[in-house]
Amino acid sequence: MREVYLVGAAQSAFGSFPDESYRSLFAAAFERALDSVDGDVDRTSIDEAYVGSLGVGGRQLGLSGPAVTEHVGLDGTSCTRIENACAASGSAFRQGVLAVRAGAADLALAGGVEVMTDTSGERTREWLGVSGETEWERMAGTTFAGVYAHMADAHMAEHGTTREHLSSVAVKNHANGANNPDAHLQFETTLDDAMDAATVADPLNLFDCCPTSDGASVALLASRETAEELTDDPIRVTGSGQASSRVGLFQRPSLTSIPATGDAADQAYDEAGVGPEDVDFAEVHDCFSIAELVACEDLGFCDAGEAGEYVLSGATEPDGERPVNLSGGLKSKGHPIGATGTGQIAEVYKQLRGEAGERQVDGLHRGLTHNVGGSGGAVAVHVFEEGWA
Amino acid sequence: MREVYLVGAAQSAFGSFPDESYRSLFAAAFERALDSVDGDVDRTSIDEAYVGSLGVGGRQLGLSGPAVTEHVGLDGTSCTRIENACAASGSAFRQGVLAVRAGAADLALAGGVEVMTDTSGERTREWLGVSGETEWERMAGTTFAGVYAHMADAHMAEHGTTREHLSSVAVKNHANGANNPDAHLQFETTLDDAMDAATVADPLNLFDCCPTSDGASVALLASRETAEELTDDPIRVTGSGQASSRVGLFQRPSLTSIPATGDAADQAYDEAGVGPEDVDFAEVHDCFSIAELVACEDLGFCDAGEAGEYVLSGATEPDGERPVNLSGGLKSKGHPIGATGTGQIAEVYKQLRGEAGERQVDGLHRGLTHNVGGSGGAVAVHVFEEGWA
Repeated sequence: MREVYLVGAAQSAFGSFPDESYRSLFAAAFERALDSVDGDVDRTSIDEAYVGSLGVGGRQLGLSGPAVTEHVGLDGTSCTRIENACAASGSAFRQGVLAVRAGAADLALAGGVEVMTDTSGERTREWLGVSGETEWERMAGTTFAGVYAHMADAHMAEHGTTREHLSSVAVKNHANGANNPDAHLQFETTLDDAMDAATVADPLNLFDCCPTSDGASVALLASRETAEELTDDPIRVTGSGQASSRVGLFQRPSLTSIPATGDAADQAYDEAGVGPEDVDFAEVHDCFSIAELVACEDLGFCDAGEAGEYVLSGATEPDGERPVNLSGGLKSKGHPIGATGTGQIAEVYKQLRGEAGERQVDGLHRGLTHNVGGSGGAVAVHVFEEGWA
Repeated sequence: MREVYLVGAAQSAFGSFPDESYRSLFAAAFERALDSVDGDVDRTSIDEAYVGSLGVGGRQLGLSGPAVTEHVGLDGTSCTRIENACAASGSAFRQGVLAVRAGAADLALAGGVEVMTDTSGERTREWLGVSGETEWERMAGTTFAGVYAHMADAHMAEHGTTREHLSSVAVKNHANGANNPDAHLQFETTLDDAMDAATVADPLNLFDCCPTSDGASVALLASRETAEELTDDPIRVTGSGQASSRVGLFQRPSLTSIPATGDAADQAYDEAGVGPEDVDFAEVHDCFSIAELVACEDLGFCDAGEAGEYVLSGATEPDGERPVNLSGGLKSKGHPIGATGTGQIAEVYKQLRGEAGERQVDGLHRGLTHNVGGSGGAVAVHVFEEGWA
């Protein structure tokens, strides 16, 4: 199997940008990604592109992949749009990995883009609603916050998880995001404020929920030979895993675990020849605070049911044993659906190369990304490591 | 590079099916695809799935891939939704090829599904409109028929293509589709009737346009080792190519050629080690009659500007030198957007194995499929050949 390297990755700013379009946001991320490469990349040397988006707002339903890649000068280059709800660009990145492994590309692009803030909140909820299980959950009036609220409720009942546990995720991620100049919500919060926020879907409150954001992100993947031409400071993609769970939460055996996370992680760990204990840091899919707790358990960072105490212990803080969401996570950095997966990968790229500015943590050698579509209908997990194979 | 084999492929009936859903149509195609395999396939042995759809109608915007694969018992299996407008499942098939080549799958599923007839014609046009170039073409009021009408107009002006040339495509494809029990429009037409039909977008009339259809299709791809367990009558995928052109027709250098078709075909021919002269038969993307003419030229079946005479000469008839659209093509078989690409592949599978019933043509050993998204924003071309490598 051909080795795959991450030779560049970046995100645009995430936020609410009435003056930007999905094309201009993608272009911003793309130019930053080119700049993030040590060597000079001729954009026409990109062999294959994958762009993730959900298409919230419906401005370009079809061909939105080629529509953004042509905008940055890649017309002619094969481009495929990938949609797996919020895991769109995590899945796009997996296709980039496979394209390089298969020999179809020596240099591949995987990215994502979403514009969410140009429609009303009600309209956005409507679009997001049809990204979950539409036949029963949506018909029952459930929102995404509602689905994750069921998970939180069950986690509290089964494992004694508390309001403080949930809010400690928000406090940590906001503290991290306050140091990220590209984050949507660049402010800290206190535990009291996070615990006392207005209810969105009981038991989840405003600080348990990520914002809806505009943004884009782009990663560049290369074969060993191409990577050697571009950098002396390589990041290798050592593991790629993807799996699906039943799209409807109610159709799964447990409300407190997402089986696809465990399945995708097992694949990625196996390929990388490592276990969770070998992961130095991770960007996990914290669309809601409970999602980060469940992710820590399903990824094997702590035992089932113990994530609340694990996070509260400081283990996932920047100075903890395994920092989680140094970027601020979806909670603070923002969640432009299609851009989130490769946005996580951009943070891993920065941290492993020592380019994360004020939020840089030293001594990190192996990172993991975890990107969830819906409430687990699709999950992509990737493992990254410094150095040549 | 690992060899890739097509070990099964089938379509559901294409048509207007008020009693079916996107899930039931996909299930019908999937069960037929399993039945089309010589050996017994354990569905849980499918390692990776790709499902193409545009999402016309908006019933399940996100995760429609996992939503249909879980319905046929593949919950847990990694599934990625692919959207490249009308090339969705051609692109999905390419991802399946790369997944097998990359070693991520020994058995992969690529398919597609669309339900189009449960919304009004106006609503369908609206959905299709956002699959072309939305910022200028749609704003100018252009429909898809309008975009292809520009191509027809230009082809007539530049090359002397006639009304009869266009209609002869419809006559041939309807004659073929009349022998296809799974076609949407199973009737023949005369040249006079085809020429005299009501105008849709001048110079294109009703018989120049494919219908909007409901339907699904599924192909199964395997590694050499897995294929050897499943069949003694293998079909090898010898070439896979994909490329993009500018999404807007007006942004391209010519109105009478789709550059991405030539680029994708070059890749596929190179991989297969063949040229157009070696292709025994083809399923090409005839969403409009002019599209089949342009495809014959861009694929190299005839010289630029000569497709009208080429088709009129009978070269692409079932008893001609290179039959085109033996299935009836999009024109007669129907065009359920996401299902079309792997639907074409199902026809190639049937013909190469001698299982095409009344429309079977003997002596075919190498086939080609050509699937176009929009007016050429994405094109996927595949070459198939009988026998082991």
